[in-house]
Amino acid sequence: MSLLARPARLSTADSEFEAQFAARLHWSAETDGAIELRVADILTDVRERGDAAVLEYTARFDGLSASTMADLELTQADFKAAFDSLPNAQRDALQAATRRVRSYHEAQKKAGGESWSYRDEDGTLLGQKVTPLDRVGIYVPGGKAAYPSSLIMNAVPAHVAGVQEIIMVVPTPVRGSVATGGNGESTSARGERNDLVLAAAYVAGVTRAFTIGGAQAVAALAYGTATVPRVDKITGPGNAYVASAKKRVFGTVGIDMIAGPSEILVLADGSTPAEWVAMDLFSQAEHDELAQSILLCPSEAYIEAVQREIDRLLPSMPRAAIIVKSLNDRGALIHTRSMEEACAISNRIAPEHLEVSSSDPHRWEPLLRHAGAIFLGAYTSESLGDYCAGPNHVLPTSGTARFSSPLGVYDFQKRSSLIEVSSAGAQTLGSIAAEMAYGEGLQAHARAAEMRLDVVPPMRSAK
Amino acid sequence: MSLLARPARLSTADSEFEAQFAARLHWSAETDGAIELRVADILTDVRERGDAAVLEYTARFDGLSASTMADLELTQADFKAAFDSLPNAQRDALQAATRRVRSYHEAQKKAGGESWSYRDEDGTLLGQKVTPLDRVGIYVPGGKAAYPSSLIMNAVPAHVAGVQEIIMVVPTPVRGSVATGGNGESTSARGERNDLVLAAAYVAGVTRAFTIGGAQAVAALAYGTATVPRVDKITGPGNAYVASAKKRVFGTVGIDMIAGPSEILVLADGSTPAEWVAMDLFSQAEHDELAQSILLCPSEAYIEAVQREIDRLLPSMPRAAIIVKSLNDRGALIHTRSMEEACAISNRIAPEHLEVSSSDPHRWEPLLRHAGAIFLGAYTSESLGDYCAGPNHVLPTSGTARFSSPLGVYDFQKRSSLIEVSSAGAQTLGSIAAEMAYGEGLQAHARAAEMRLDVVPPMRSAK
Repeated sequence: MSLLARPARLSTADSEFEAQFAARLHWSAETDGAIELRVADILTDVRERGDAAVLEYTARFDGLSASTMADLELTQADFKAAFDSLPNAQRDALQAATRRVRSYHEAQKKAGGESWSYRDEDGTLLGQKVTPLDRVGIYVPGGKAAYPSSLIMNAVPAHVAGVQEIIMVVPTPVRGSVATGGNGESTSARGERNDLVLAAAYVAGVTRAFTIGGAQAVAALAYGTATVPRVDKITGPGNAYVASAKKRVFGTVGIDMIAGPSEILVLADGSTPAEWVAMDLFSQAEHDELAQSILLCPSEAYIEAVQREIDRLLPSMPRAAIIVKSLNDRGALIHTRSMEEACAISNRIAPEHLEVSSSDPHRWEPLLRHAGAIFLGAYTSESLGDYCAGPNHVLPTSGTARFSSPLGVYDFQKRSSLIEVSSAGAQTLGSIAAEMAYGEGLQAHARAAEMRLDVVPPMRSAK
Repeated sequence: MSLLARPARLSTADSEFEAQFAARLHWSAETDGAIELRVADILTDVRERGDAAVLEYTARFDGLSASTMADLELTQADFKAAFDSLPNAQRDALQAATRRVRSYHEAQKKAGGESWSYRDEDGTLLGQKVTPLDRVGIYVPGGKAAYPSSLIMNAVPAHVAGVQEIIMVVPTPVRGSVATGGNGESTSARGERNDLVLAAAYVAGVTRAFTIGGAQAVAALAYGTATVPRVDKITGPGNAYVASAKKRVFGTVGIDMIAGPSEILVLADGSTPAEWVAMDLFSQAEHDELAQSILLCPSEAYIEAVQREIDRLLPSMPRAAIIVKSLNDRGALIHTRSMEEACAISNRIAPEHLEVSSSDPHRWEPLLRHAGAIFLGAYTSESLGDYCAGPNHVLPTSGTARFSSPLGVYDFQKRSSLIEVSSAGAQTLGSIAAEMAYGEGLQAHARAAEMRLDVVPPMRSAK
């Protein structure tokens, strides 16, 4: 593979721009029918046979043999031992990141996650009661690229919401196994546990954890087994098997969004050091070859400068091969007529991560309608947000920021409407409700309202 | 069919209670493989051929022939004419209900639907920007049992959220057609339009509307055609074809929950007139034969009184046949040891509608953790909430209140995280982020953070 990273160079002034732009953006999550069928079978089997099925699939796919599910449970002592084994700097970083993420999510809860109510002029009480979910499951991918930050980002908002039980599943596949629950990268010999992930479980506060993965882990969480408690919602990223299983159990339990490849879009006015922007584009591209890094900028000279920094910095990157493939296949440096046009294009993309790399970011922010997270100003690298600024790094991808939101406290709460109609309110509301109910041909609805009237009218016929 | 309604009589003191209770609650949304395949084909076809495919399916399934999609568009004049054709009382009821629903949802938006931000001690700005979706689609089932109240409950929160375009689809199948988009009930000859629904579109404010339904309408909204604009989210109830199509387009657009049969659970302490409670049970049962009405009460005498009222009131009900089938197959009158136990059982069910029919409802409300809507006190019949109290009547069913919420303004908004790291903040956060990024083997992430440090350290190797 060439070690030259050459993102596509587009210009909005070019007559071919729309077609080139569409081609670059195109990505579709093809559903694999074979995986879907296999996952459906696994779900049914775990639902019917519980622990026994989970043990069998874990042996078959992860190469990890155990005679009982208890052997696959991690303890609080395991978490603590992993934490204690880390160098001080890593321990401190985990704790500092968790503290900041917690503090942001506490502010989020205050801003909209509390119950509310009011009484209208008739004395009728109206409102919503906000309560935490009882129990949630967090899926953490296994293998080499296991991300402790992802565990923090899933567990902390659940905690802040008030969820009492957080159940983690994390596969520890043995090298050479089929690893349906892994992430495509093999691990070392005996199903090795990632100390950083276990330490993060200690810091973020996980209630129980099992070294299981894939569709079988999703099924165990959704239906419950003799050992694994049934949860109310499952969050966290996983491979195609996990994604398919989550989609299928949706309705039995809640799920978070199914994530596509990660994306960054940088809107640059040319005021940020070009090497910073180049490294920000790398930081997205290094995730995987399907990741997408796009720069939008009205200055051709600045785009040139960023390309030069890409060339200069690339050789020092350990993950250069992935970066090159990602930038060459999916990256783009787009010359726009203006920052306003750049903002309009950004809205069409609705990117997961949006850096406004400008000396005047608040001028552009109001123009940006769709994005998972907006990073304002030169100092706000996406990577600060990924780890420790406070906001969640689980964000809507593939344009779904048009209609969905970052993972948050609200994902671990639900609402119940509260209504207490006063006797006066029953008079006002009763005749309105009855009129509409008769109109819909629902006489019992109408009579239930009319019976509460001081003077109960005769029943009308359907109309 | 017998016109005797005899809901199951259970008692928590009975040793068989758990088994009987489980049997009564059991309901599963079987997915029909044949429908799934057919829907997948329809979606692909509409995606590829647009209007032409929609026209063909509308002719085939709804028996409604049109040469262009323009012929299937309803205009604002159609809405107004329908509204003008209604009796005064119906017009007033539609307007009053819409006004109250709007006022409640405005309070809901204030309570948690506004942007927020704060600055930390380093001057770093953190927050969330809350914005409306651009364009949403509302599915309204066609046929006889078309519910204007449902249109109000979907359109008003979208409006309050600030959604600019609300696109309605409502099939007008011709009698005898296959009617994949209908609700199982046939309509009169020429694909008749329901004036109440069109009048509700006028009152609630629908931007554009098309007389199409089924999977083809969902596809048109999700992918867009030459005539039907692509939306960001689709809400509203529909039959099995519509539900399957919504599930399949989820991810391309947002969707609301897929609703199961409607349910009411009444917790009664015996203080409410028994005939009111009997009628409330009817008002759920009259929806359809799968609807579920359950009474939980610690007084055997009161349960007897409710059964007597059921017997007395049933013959006057036009929908008695449906009520009888629903109550006999799925209804239950459950004698509990106490109100506390009744609350605990209610939490296990997580009902869609929960009436606390008590002289002291606020004593029990804090014990109730899971419910779509909680109706407090004798005057608060579910039917008042269904139409005009203000809260939304689109509620989580089938136990999904464990993890989901009533439809609300929040369903038509999305959030973007806001982060603006100060130069001081970049120093504090940079070293934490770099430490974690190195730990995860993501060096570009680490370098993007380190480059913003006043003193840039040498790059470390992966570990």
